[in-house]
Amino acid sequence: MKKEANNAINCSTQTWPIRVYYEDTDHGGVVYYANYLKFMERARSEFLRTAGLELDQIEQDYGVMFAVRQANVSYHAPARFNEKLLIHSSLVDMRGARIAFKQQIYRDDDHTLLTEGDIHLACINRDGNVSRIPANIINTLHDYLTNNEESAS
Amino acid sequence: MKKEANNAINCSTQTWPIRVYYEDTDHGGVVYYANYLKFMERARSEFLRTAGLELDQIEQDYGVMFAVRQANVSYHAPARFNEKLLIHSSLVDMRGARIAFKQQIYRDDDHTLLTEGDIHLACINRDGNVSRIPANIINTLHDYLTNNEESAS
Amino acid sequence: MKKEANNAINCSTQTWPIRVYYEDTDHGGVVYYANYLKFMERARSEFLRTAGLELDQIEQDYGVMFAVRQANVSYHAPARFNEKLLIHSSLVDMRGARIAFKQQIYRDDDHTLLTEGDIHLACINRDGNVSRIPANIINTLHDYLTNNEESAS
Amino acid sequence: MKKEANNAINCSTQTWPIRVYYEDTDHGGVVYYANYLKFMERARSEFLRTAGLELDQIEQDYGVMFAVRQANVSYHAPARFNEKLLIHSSLVDMRGARIAFKQQIYRDDDHTLLTEGDIHLACINRDGNVSRIPANIINTLHDYLTNNEESAS
Repeated sequence: MKKEANNAINCSTQTWPIRVYYEDTDHGGVVYYANYLKFMERARSEFLRTAGLELDQIEQDYGVMFAVRQANVSYHAPARFNEKLLIHSSLVDMRGARIAFKQQIYRDDDHTLLTEGDIHLACINRDGNVSRIPANIINTLHDYLTNNEESAS
Repeated sequence: MKKEANNAINCSTQTWPIRVYYEDTDHGGVVYYANYLKFMERARSEFLRTAGLELDQIEQDYGVMFAVRQANVSYHAPARFNEKLLIHSSLVDMRGARIAFKQQIYRDDDHTLLTEGDIHLACINRDGNVSRIPANIINTLHDYLTNNEESAS
Repeated sequence: MKKEANNAINCSTQTWPIRVYYEDTDHGGVVYYANYLKFMERARSEFLRTAGLELDQIEQDYGVMFAVRQANVSYHAPARFNEKLLIHSSLVDMRGARIAFKQQIYRDDDHTLLTEGDIHLACINRDGNVSRIPANIINTLHDYLTNNEESAS
Repeated sequence: MKKEANNAINCSTQTWPIRVYYEDTDHGGVVYYANYLKFMERARSEFLRTAGLELDQIEQDYGVMFAVRQANVSYHAPARFNEKLLIHSSLVDMRGARIAFKQQIYRDDDHTLLTEGDIHLACINRDGNVSRIPANIINTLHDYLTNNEESAS
């Protein structure tokens, strides 16, 4: 069972497009370093939506949210105004109250890798305390990852 | 000719979808008031892209940008986390160095009007001085608006 | 009584300094147009703090917040990276559920007027419904404005 | 000489206060995770200003900027609306084209450590290429760090 889940997790990369607007850039002519974290968070939300999970619904149904605990971001090359970017997101870990994503941001034009992030999140309840990820959420994600694995093989 | 252009301008509404992410909300549980201006600016950029104008290309080719001179925004009802919004954008004026948009933000679910904006922009050159909109840009926009008018009638 | 309050309101300008950081600028080399609304909101929060009102305390004690209903902003000249700005904020109206500020943003260096805003807010309760401003808040503001008037004359 | 510089670097912590405004929070009621990176960047700018370095002047005089290459951020506890925070910033490395800061964000009220960041930057020139930090900048920083060390001992 554990092996299955790990296998599933290995092949769960999803791609989400982002356009760079004025709001994202700074006077250096490139995307401001904190804004890549916004892009990554959008892509994680869309990853979960594709898997069948809506974050507002999760809050209402289970009283939990996902809070970032650690973000390690490497900036290799800058994104510029009006460029189209592709965010690759992979769910790389999920157990107990923890979930982790590996994310890469590419320029669409020439597929240059611009930014990479390792983002670790914790499931927290309404009081802000760490809380096991509800079983239904885990199952939905495992089903999604397993189905993706099958269709990929 | 002037009448044609005005007619064209009257029927140039374009719709652009926006998803509300965490980054857009504030601790009141709704979209932060300044962030609707970001949404409107994204939709204006997409309006121009659809008309055949890329803002980075315009900067390179003509050395001009569009700077907001006046923004009048009415907030009727709040947008909430994870909602899908639709931004309606109409080009309502264009002459000399000036261009103006009327924009409405609707909740997609129930088509409630949330926010309205009148946004006036000026064409400025690299020194920041007001500069007539290049004739090619005017023509591209007129062609786009006229074609839309024809296909709408 | 009404006259007194109006007099008091006429002389209630407060100044708050802001530094322009990278996050505030865009690739045009100037402050992004939506970010001036952030600056104005910071200055309104500080206006209220100086008058003795803490917005988080108001939420806890009275269950109300202030939501922007109308923002009319004129952009005269751009603020640039690393400049120090001064935000002038005046409380120009306060009755029922409504409160309004007039705000100007100046460059500190040469006192150039960069941006002006008329910001109208409504007091709303936890359900998002319009609600009369609590009497204690009105009184605190009137006392503050009256004292400022006296010390100014 | 190398030892001196290292000693100096060890005792160069500077504190910068930040107030949490609406713009910084998200609908979870806490500061949005990307916004702590804005706070850290403001504090780094103020660190350099105190040392005698203005980033806009450096751009003009030397044609260089500092771009973030790696940001590792740990989130221990959330900051909330209207809280006052203190950002501690230490310059921990500086050689060739590289400069690195260690930064901690504390809640002012109870001195709880909320967030920690290791931020590595590279000096880049106008073409975006890595470039040695100009000797004058290195010297200004070394002088500042050495003086701080002396006054601290």
